[in-house]
Amino acid sequence: MPGSLLVISAHAGDFVWRASGAIALATARGERAKVVCLSYGERGESARAWRDGLALDEIKHLRRSEATSAAAVLGAEIEFFDAGDYPLPESAELVDRLVRVYRDVEPAVVLTHPPADPYNGDHPAASRMALQARVLAQAIGYEAPGDPLGAPPVFFFEPHQPEQCDFRPNLLLDITPVFEVKRQAMECLPAQRHMWDYYTDLAVRRGVQLNRNAGPNLGRTHGTRAEAYVRLFPQTTEVLA
Amino acid sequence: MPGSLLVISAHAGDFVWRASGAIALATARGERAKVVCLSYGERGESARAWRDGLALDEIKHLRRSEATSAAAVLGAEIEFFDAGDYPLPESAELVDRLVRVYRDVEPAVVLTHPPADPYNGDHPAASRMALQARVLAQAIGYEAPGDPLGAPPVFFFEPHQPEQCDFRPNLLLDITPVFEVKRQAMECLPAQRHMWDYYTDLAVRRGVQLNRNAGPNLGRTHGTRAEAYVRLFPQTTEVLA
Amino acid sequence: MPGSLLVISAHAGDFVWRASGAIALATARGERAKVVCLSYGERGESARAWRDGLALDEIKHLRRSEATSAAAVLGAEIEFFDAGDYPLPESAELVDRLVRVYRDVEPAVVLTHPPADPYNGDHPAASRMALQARVLAQAIGYEAPGDPLGAPPVFFFEPHQPEQCDFRPNLLLDITPVFEVKRQAMECLPAQRHMWDYYTDLAVRRGVQLNRNAGPNLGRTHGTRAEAYVRLFPQTTEVLA
Amino acid sequence: MPGSLLVISAHAGDFVWRASGAIALATARGERAKVVCLSYGERGESARAWRDGLALDEIKHLRRSEATSAAAVLGAEIEFFDAGDYPLPESAELVDRLVRVYRDVEPAVVLTHPPADPYNGDHPAASRMALQARVLAQAIGYEAPGDPLGAPPVFFFEPHQPEQCDFRPNLLLDITPVFEVKRQAMECLPAQRHMWDYYTDLAVRRGVQLNRNAGPNLGRTHGTRAEAYVRLFPQTTEVLA
Amino acid sequence: MPGSLLVISAHAGDFVWRASGAIALATARGERAKVVCLSYGERGESARAWRDGLALDEIKHLRRSEATSAAAVLGAEIEFFDAGDYPLPESAELVDRLVRVYRDVEPAVVLTHPPADPYNGDHPAASRMALQARVLAQAIGYEAPGDPLGAPPVFFFEPHQPEQCDFRPNLLLDITPVFEVKRQAMECLPAQRHMWDYYTDLAVRRGVQLNRNAGPNLGRTHGTRAEAYVRLFPQTTEVLA
Amino acid sequence: MPGSLLVISAHAGDFVWRASGAIALATARGERAKVVCLSYGERGESARAWRDGLALDEIKHLRRSEATSAAAVLGAEIEFFDAGDYPLPESAELVDRLVRVYRDVEPAVVLTHPPADPYNGDHPAASRMALQARVLAQAIGYEAPGDPLGAPPVFFFEPHQPEQCDFRPNLLLDITPVFEVKRQAMECLPAQRHMWDYYTDLAVRRGVQLNRNAGPNLGRTHGTRAEAYVRLFPQTTEVLA
Repeated sequence: MPGSLLVISAHAGDFVWRASGAIALATARGERAKVVCLSYGERGESARAWRDGLALDEIKHLRRSEATSAAAVLGAEIEFFDAGDYPLPESAELVDRLVRVYRDVEPAVVLTHPPADPYNGDHPAASRMALQARVLAQAIGYEAPGDPLGAPPVFFFEPHQPEQCDFRPNLLLDITPVFEVKRQAMECLPAQRHMWDYYTDLAVRRGVQLNRNAGPNLGRTHGTRAEAYVRLFPQTTEVLA
Repeated sequence: MPGSLLVISAHAGDFVWRASGAIALATARGERAKVVCLSYGERGESARAWRDGLALDEIKHLRRSEATSAAAVLGAEIEFFDAGDYPLPESAELVDRLVRVYRDVEPAVVLTHPPADPYNGDHPAASRMALQARVLAQAIGYEAPGDPLGAPPVFFFEPHQPEQCDFRPNLLLDITPVFEVKRQAMECLPAQRHMWDYYTDLAVRRGVQLNRNAGPNLGRTHGTRAEAYVRLFPQTTEVLA
Repeated sequence: MPGSLLVISAHAGDFVWRASGAIALATARGERAKVVCLSYGERGESARAWRDGLALDEIKHLRRSEATSAAAVLGAEIEFFDAGDYPLPESAELVDRLVRVYRDVEPAVVLTHPPADPYNGDHPAASRMALQARVLAQAIGYEAPGDPLGAPPVFFFEPHQPEQCDFRPNLLLDITPVFEVKRQAMECLPAQRHMWDYYTDLAVRRGVQLNRNAGPNLGRTHGTRAEAYVRLFPQTTEVLA
Repeated sequence: MPGSLLVISAHAGDFVWRASGAIALATARGERAKVVCLSYGERGESARAWRDGLALDEIKHLRRSEATSAAAVLGAEIEFFDAGDYPLPESAELVDRLVRVYRDVEPAVVLTHPPADPYNGDHPAASRMALQARVLAQAIGYEAPGDPLGAPPVFFFEPHQPEQCDFRPNLLLDITPVFEVKRQAMECLPAQRHMWDYYTDLAVRRGVQLNRNAGPNLGRTHGTRAEAYVRLFPQTTEVLA
Repeated sequence: MPGSLLVISAHAGDFVWRASGAIALATARGERAKVVCLSYGERGESARAWRDGLALDEIKHLRRSEATSAAAVLGAEIEFFDAGDYPLPESAELVDRLVRVYRDVEPAVVLTHPPADPYNGDHPAASRMALQARVLAQAIGYEAPGDPLGAPPVFFFEPHQPEQCDFRPNLLLDITPVFEVKRQAMECLPAQRHMWDYYTDLAVRRGVQLNRNAGPNLGRTHGTRAEAYVRLFPQTTEVLA
Repeated sequence: MPGSLLVISAHAGDFVWRASGAIALATARGERAKVVCLSYGERGESARAWRDGLALDEIKHLRRSEATSAAAVLGAEIEFFDAGDYPLPESAELVDRLVRVYRDVEPAVVLTHPPADPYNGDHPAASRMALQARVLAQAIGYEAPGDPLGAPPVFFFEPHQPEQCDFRPNLLLDITPVFEVKRQAMECLPAQRHMWDYYTDLAVRRGVQLNRNAGPNLGRTHGTRAEAYVRLFPQTTEVLA
């Protein structure tokens, strides 16, 4: 039985720019993928809508609608916690909701924000809650439906200014086969049209780097698209490669 | 065609304690494995032989013989550069010899010492030369027989006092199926009998840690044996796991 | 007048595996030792009891009873805050209770968890509260009985996966004379029988490392048992050694 | 039998500013102290003499004479390798000479420069050679008179711009009882008169910090003088304090 | 129009010791400078007053009065949040008050504590709130009077024990022209008379370091006074210098 | 008198991709700019020429010619040391040649490679020699024509895979006004045509980041082009900004 993918992000758009390649790869393999958006990013990530004069509820509705479309393009489920952003408040209740998602999804792989971001405090807050909930879900003594979780690996996706966030990729994921799907998902977010090319360029850049680290047989040199990740826990394997 | 494994170590015994699990796994899969010992460890790693009054040549012969036996148990080729130890001298000539080995073996995976070790300067020296030679071998303009090398991943094997060497494992290799072979290889080095149990205990300890990081399905809880490694370059992959 | 030892741990069992050598050494010298367990570890560290079908209260009672026995073996006082675990909640009230303990015990030495542990959020939480309370207890203006605290040194004891917790020992404590006492204390925790040998092996391993760092006269080579610590603040001394 | 102190410094003046408190404490306890100056600092540390128009030999003679006087004040032996400075060349020959000093002095404690200093490449070069020689001297197979060395602890003394050299003190040495001796030793170097007050102020500053880390009983608050050090290897001890 | 300077400190005295040179430089240029003291430092930084038997309200009044005098000497505005210290509680309300200050002052430069200080938890708490408020104030969607903030650079001022706080200065500010003003400001705090000389000596020390990093023309060698800072975000410039 | 810019690079092409914006800005201000290429990059950076069957001398001639054209476009002087690459050998002679350049150019600003690059050992070798020569050139006692050097700031330019080289930019240089000149300079290197767009995209990416860190007035949002640098020594200044 194929494993599931769980993506926990602070705002409605994060998973699209940073992890939709990984999501599309998973669903293309027939795996379940679920995205949890802790907030809509209604205050901190919706500058254009505020400048256009929309009200808070309209902005939340807009962001929800865009993210839902993007998830549909990717073949992923999506759930919105509507916990508020700027700041995203950390609480035992939110963490408990995440524990329940872990127990339900039983993810084989978890994606979330890296734990440092001096430009956006919601990202580390989401990361801390995602990691804490994962540990709590592992305990048989934690009261929540479902079985205790195993130890799914956690990967941090790429922040906007990686070096300032101590983000040093230790994994480059080849998303070439699904890059057009990622592009389509990005185009579901028209208010951030300037990001479409920005993250396309980034995929090219990470693709070049992937080719430079691609192992003994360096065949492809053009056209590779990649996403960068940081693996948190040690990889466990039976084969070095 | 399966890839080859290249192991570059400072002294004759290093590969046995630190990497023979990985070697045995590779040869069990039918892959070529080659070990290069830059020195015999005749001065720095042969205290008992010196105390027993052996002469330098006798010690080198003894170490060569033991390491050759261990390699045979593991099904690996072995080559001795006899460059001297304590200190292992770094030189362009030694690096060039390593380039030629890289071009010949065309390794899919490279193992060597980590770059820091305050207890033994030969280990970082070996590491630096192994890494420099790998880069040189990649250049079509470097004059040596064979084709330019690809970009085989490099893994650092575990030093004796890992925390003091900034060794933070990011990969745990399951060597359970071949642990008895590793034990046999260790027993080819009778002068360091106290190390047999020491590295057996370490394999148990790393095995416990492997189980704690083993992914979504935590089945095994006893009997796992593991070796710890640090992957130097970003992993490249098409599947997050 | 000999100083006191204060040990602050997240769960009921932590002090046994990680610091009972230091405790036994202190009580053997006639010093007071006090252990504070912020929780019983009833949810996160009692998997077997949950699998055996015990109720929450039964588990807390069991853990309390075991830890009390272990403390008795070590000659230490023990106090349980019963603050809950998984998660251990951080609060001003808990910190205030710790301040009062500091003012009462007037410790010469403080032991607690290191501040990072991606496998268990309760450990860093306990560490943060232990350190914050120590600073507050130093202020004459903080309202609590007793005199302002001096500046007792703090040592972090060893986590389960040291490298993943950024734990780089800078002190190795020779616990050879009291190792049998530590073993007895561990045997007070029968539900974690597999840990007895695990932490015995660790004491051997740290003992080997102690011998390799033991100063100008390297006499002993077998039988040394040690615990590893990280000293947080600079050592102050009148003699370099 | 009290242990010996070995100080290895790049230039003739380094030991005076950075470590003469530790030296004076050792000799006051009746211990042997030996200083090795790898160079006279004739090119890089003698700006005034060059501006005064002295010739190279005159400068070397002057520096030798001043350092000899300072060592005499401290009660320490001193040996000059005259290896040249700016740059201090690293070589197997220099390291071998240091090995012979280690084997002769059998130090209980070793002091040298920290391994990073972007302002002065001779300091890291001296540090690397001091550390390599210590390891070589430990090997019974290394050909040099005397017995194999034990594992004397190494302490790095304070560079001129500590934060830029990654120098984070983990030991503060109380030199109050011998501070006047240190001042006298400094005054043996008249060409660097501005340093006398500079390093007196530093001793005050480190003294204030010592008091803030002084353990459970914070008695003294004025008059303490201290030197800062970084301990390289883990401390080994039978008592936490 | 010249920019404004905003200084956010945990206690009433912090800005005087650590940043009054920068403040005096700004006001001497005719710029607005505003200091926010989150607490009076009434419990943790007023040991003498407590020993003298003053009541809490008297101490707060005293500290307010002293800090107000120092701000007047510097030509700066000052505002007291009276949020309490030891511990300084972190809360959404405090952060929101800071957001309003940011929106009002529209600072061109922000100064606050560095994010680590094992000796005083209030300093990191102030730092975290200052940084979070800055990010929130940038969002058009955050409800507070005024325009969204730009991206003013943030500089951390120097803690008491810099190396223990991971404080590695990357900017040395020449405060020679206003040093006498800083001294006067310090003398507004008579209860901490011993700090006057301590921070004068520090200004000399940082001044010596400034001269050693002063660029292509090293003219001055005496009399320079400096304050050390850490710039948090990348400098943006049109000229390398 | 405006200061000079000195750029020290390992291979003939490095300065074009990584620093030609800074060079063009300097020459546009009427400042002298000098580039030193330690080698032509004939073995390690000329894969296409080797595949095309050129001989070593032809390749060196080609690289020299291209780099000379690029320097001419930028208005910079260029000097080739022809020291060989892959590996670039470190030697006292090369360092001495660099000292003489420093003494001649009297740079106000120095640019070179960062000290870590696991993909190319020549880059760190060039960096080490550039930094060592700078320190030697400062010493009045070092025998070379010219006056002792001051303390020009050093900036590391961006490597190809920044995160893997521990390259964390702390300065973003706005090169918008000269970007077309940089593009022209890049187009002087036709064999690496794929790099033209790659480094154009990078300039856009660093430009976006510059805008996000641009201080209190965030005006521009499109069209900014930037180069990223790491400042090695503390900035010295009289104004915080």
